[in-house]
Amino acid sequence: MKAWKKLSSTQVVHNKWVKLRKDTVKLPNGIILDDYYLFEKNDVALIVAVDEQNCIILKKEYRYPVNEVLYELPGGMIEEGEDPLETAKRELLEETGNISNDWKQLMCGYDYPTKDTNCVYIFLAKNVKKAANQKLDISENIEMEKVPLQEAVKMCQNNQIKVNGSIAGILLTELALKEGFR
Amino acid sequence: MKAWKKLSSTQVVHNKWVKLRKDTVKLPNGIILDDYYLFEKNDVALIVAVDEQNCIILKKEYRYPVNEVLYELPGGMIEEGEDPLETAKRELLEETGNISNDWKQLMCGYDYPTKDTNCVYIFLAKNVKKAANQKLDISENIEMEKVPLQEAVKMCQNNQIKVNGSIAGILLTELALKEGFR
Repeated sequence: MKAWKKLSSTQVVHNKWVKLRKDTVKLPNGIILDDYYLFEKNDVALIVAVDEQNCIILKKEYRYPVNEVLYELPGGMIEEGEDPLETAKRELLEETGNISNDWKQLMCGYDYPTKDTNCVYIFLAKNVKKAANQKLDISENIEMEKVPLQEAVKMCQNNQIKVNGSIAGILLTELALKEGFR
Repeated sequence: MKAWKKLSSTQVVHNKWVKLRKDTVKLPNGIILDDYYLFEKNDVALIVAVDEQNCIILKKEYRYPVNEVLYELPGGMIEEGEDPLETAKRELLEETGNISNDWKQLMCGYDYPTKDTNCVYIFLAKNVKKAANQKLDISENIEMEKVPLQEAVKMCQNNQIKVNGSIAGILLTELALKEGFR
């Protein structure tokens, strides 16, 4: 399966919040598509933060595009040039006030590679401990809840946790801990 | 946690492929944001198609935005007014030539509700059977592979399957079948 060839590229929208590109591409079968749109989004780091009681930290946040309060894993955008693990440590501290001395990368993948260029890194942080207060942006009205990992798994199964990256992180964590992942 | 209020809305890009909106919104704390960008994407249906040998169908497809061949669940966009389950049945038949007489909805959720308005529906189809040949779009150069469900779970764990919606669907299926989900 061969790569497509980029023939040309136009910035359609390019500002702090949105980078939308339109490429003309040549497919391996020779067909040329002159309007392949891509969203250049920042990479994202998500954290499954597990404490010594085997509880994880869930973020509850209102999401305007879907007009719903959602449970999600803590996390945030990886800044230009930032190491994904450093983002994860920074976001865990800023959003929850917690730190960990035991980090593992669970995966590096994608939400929607059909249109989006960005990666999602998911980290497992064990033995998390409260070390500071939350530090939030002005638009962030978020609450944190600690729930037993097994309850979080059930919340994925009954559609209470419904963001795909968060489901992936929680269920991968359950498998990893069951298998004694170090 | 209260909803944000939309004060005004502008279409920034609006064509067959991209619907990008910019809203001015008022937050519950009174702050006004005049540049909240949203992508109005079509809803999507994904299918975990399990046959009588407990194998699932994985799609292998080149994704231009990330320049990588990826394993994903079969699926596709829900057309305007289409029932998500009908989309799932149509896509399973078109993409894989398979049908099923045993469908269940595993979840309805989101890939990226921070910016995207669309839902992702994931369905479990059991006892799938080959009934026709694939019918693909011109830009689709895809291959189908059947793998045992347990192997697909391992592929999620070792980062070979790396699209969050696909991971969520496969791991939710494993839990559902283990618990005798009907």
